[in-house]
Amino acid sequence: MPINGSTTSPTAPVEVPRGLAGVVVTETRLGDVRGHEGFYHYRQYSAVELAQTRSFEDVWHLMFHGALPDAGQRAAFAARTAALRRLPDEVRAALPAIAHASALSGPLSGLRTALSLFGAAKSFRPVYDIDGGQRSADALAASAVVPTLLTALYRLGQGLDPVEPRDDLSYAANYLYMLTGSEPDPDRARAIEQYLISTIDHGFNASTFTARVITSTGADVAACLVGAVGALSGPLHGGAPSRALDTLDAIGTPDRIDGWIRERVLAGDRIMGFGHPVYRTEDPRSRMLRGIAQQFGGRMVEFAVEVERQVEAILAELKPGRELHTNVEFYAGVVMELCGLPREMFTPTFAAARVVGWGANILEQAEDSKIIRPAARYVGEAAPVPVPVPAER
Amino acid sequence: MPINGSTTSPTAPVEVPRGLAGVVVTETRLGDVRGHEGFYHYRQYSAVELAQTRSFEDVWHLMFHGALPDAGQRAAFAARTAALRRLPDEVRAALPAIAHASALSGPLSGLRTALSLFGAAKSFRPVYDIDGGQRSADALAASAVVPTLLTALYRLGQGLDPVEPRDDLSYAANYLYMLTGSEPDPDRARAIEQYLISTIDHGFNASTFTARVITSTGADVAACLVGAVGALSGPLHGGAPSRALDTLDAIGTPDRIDGWIRERVLAGDRIMGFGHPVYRTEDPRSRMLRGIAQQFGGRMVEFAVEVERQVEAILAELKPGRELHTNVEFYAGVVMELCGLPREMFTPTFAAARVVGWGANILEQAEDSKIIRPAARYVGEAAPVPVPVPAER
Repeated sequence: MPINGSTTSPTAPVEVPRGLAGVVVTETRLGDVRGHEGFYHYRQYSAVELAQTRSFEDVWHLMFHGALPDAGQRAAFAARTAALRRLPDEVRAALPAIAHASALSGPLSGLRTALSLFGAAKSFRPVYDIDGGQRSADALAASAVVPTLLTALYRLGQGLDPVEPRDDLSYAANYLYMLTGSEPDPDRARAIEQYLISTIDHGFNASTFTARVITSTGADVAACLVGAVGALSGPLHGGAPSRALDTLDAIGTPDRIDGWIRERVLAGDRIMGFGHPVYRTEDPRSRMLRGIAQQFGGRMVEFAVEVERQVEAILAELKPGRELHTNVEFYAGVVMELCGLPREMFTPTFAAARVVGWGANILEQAEDSKIIRPAARYVGEAAPVPVPVPAER
Repeated sequence: MPINGSTTSPTAPVEVPRGLAGVVVTETRLGDVRGHEGFYHYRQYSAVELAQTRSFEDVWHLMFHGALPDAGQRAAFAARTAALRRLPDEVRAALPAIAHASALSGPLSGLRTALSLFGAAKSFRPVYDIDGGQRSADALAASAVVPTLLTALYRLGQGLDPVEPRDDLSYAANYLYMLTGSEPDPDRARAIEQYLISTIDHGFNASTFTARVITSTGADVAACLVGAVGALSGPLHGGAPSRALDTLDAIGTPDRIDGWIRERVLAGDRIMGFGHPVYRTEDPRSRMLRGIAQQFGGRMVEFAVEVERQVEAILAELKPGRELHTNVEFYAGVVMELCGLPREMFTPTFAAARVVGWGANILEQAEDSKIIRPAARYVGEAAPVPVPVPAER
């Protein structure tokens, strides 16, 4: 039995598609993406319906505890997570140095460092050495503090003092409050809340997988999350809603849409904000976020809708038969811009929500005791070569 | 084609053994472990022979640049890596806070944070956005600085000032120098150097795999290394040479060996420092490290050799036919103790060497542009459930 996945384990190596594409590495009860139906869910509940009807805290409870909270549970859970927003003193004290060091490398590398420090400061222990209740408490503490870390790092980078969290605000309203220093209007807080709920989880992706691989060694929750943040920072991971807005900026005005898009399509360039590897229909997140954006209205929203309409029309003309719709990045960027988030905070905001999804995946993986450890095939020359000994050592 | 590995990708999911055991995820030219031959190598050179005849810097060059250095290259590489030992000011300034926060969670969580900060301070860029030369420079900078980070964090935790690196010492001698503040005797520096060389790489394991998964998203070198450190910190990863010494301590004296071992074997307990999932022969690292220990001699070494002898004899008697030898942990612990390393630095010392192996794996993986992203199978109920709407939202 190849218990450590060595290339020379007694059993024959198992051949699979490159990049493990389609290889089932784990079972999950957290959710599923049904690309042909344009549907995804969290524990059987349509994620879009959850975003439209529930609070971020309710869905967080669903992901961590397996069920939506009842009335008593929701108040208790909201209070518990609100109380976890404050930073330990030693982490707060180190944030200026982290913000300074991360000034050029970006907010995800700041989050990576700060979250690692937070886990150390809280003395998180290996997930296999603690019970499910403690694991859940660790994952809750880490996910509750991420908005505080992100907004403090952002403000420090701008030369501003961090804003202390308020526990009388919802997760989403407090996030915007810590970012700007003023209480957000309820429509904007709710719009961001719906975006955050819709992006907590979305099938198996490289950061979620990374979190589960590290969990499978038994490492602590911070180790798992820090690895996931690292994977999310990779350009192939995707999830960069600011790129779609950059496209809108590059087009500039409605009269330029047709020429700009045709040029890109004919050149075979990818148009940021369009196309998804799984959805063969409209991306359900995109539809929801467009609806939210249209409630705000205004020139940018009208422009975005017109770009979407013309891109689809031009693609239908130039590449008939190829379904290509806006993906989540497109209207996520529009909604975040409408809510006053600076573009460099778009991906960190995505990360804040996704930490809850990673946390749920870590908790689920920790129930399994099998390490995830595949094999490599050595493809160099097989014959050993004597080591040449240098004149002096 | 399942380009994002969703559970509902158009192709059928690929079924594989649990934990991806034996699943070939990548090809490598870095090395191979041949369990039946008791042999492992780095790029065709016996790793043990390298440890016996070359410097750590020579093997580092081999791993990063594909060949052992010639005379000019070895001097240049040694000078280049020595110059990379110093910390950027902003990292040095943050180390006391990191050491303080990590006091209870251990040196690997301190390393995780410090290395993350280092990568941010050096503005490491995504591996897919830079060329191979810059990637190699980043990996070199990170692996050169790890001993400085580890020893500084250790000393700060002991209430001591960090010792600045010296560039006139070899990698191994400088490591011991920074740890203790005094120049090590050459035999001890050489013994640690041989241990370090022998542990740079050893087949595919969970931390190496983690580094490669994060690399495959295109993230920066620090993101990849930080994930690997996290995976290494998991108790299932293995590589905790202090546990074997704890076994020696628990036995205490030669007259107690027989009773202590028989009790454990009959109870079916695992004896730390014995047994390896791949080697069916003696672990080649163990044999080499025993030889090094015996050159030092002394009571502890004689005791360790006697424990080894009796364990093998008792197992041959009680579990005939089952090959069980010391693994690398056993004599690695003995050698590190002989060289004056505190036990809490045993695993960090292992990590310092392994960072070079991870770095080589990151550089190799970065040549591939395919993201590593397997799939999960949703095993909950399939039918969507309407979201219950609470009385107030």
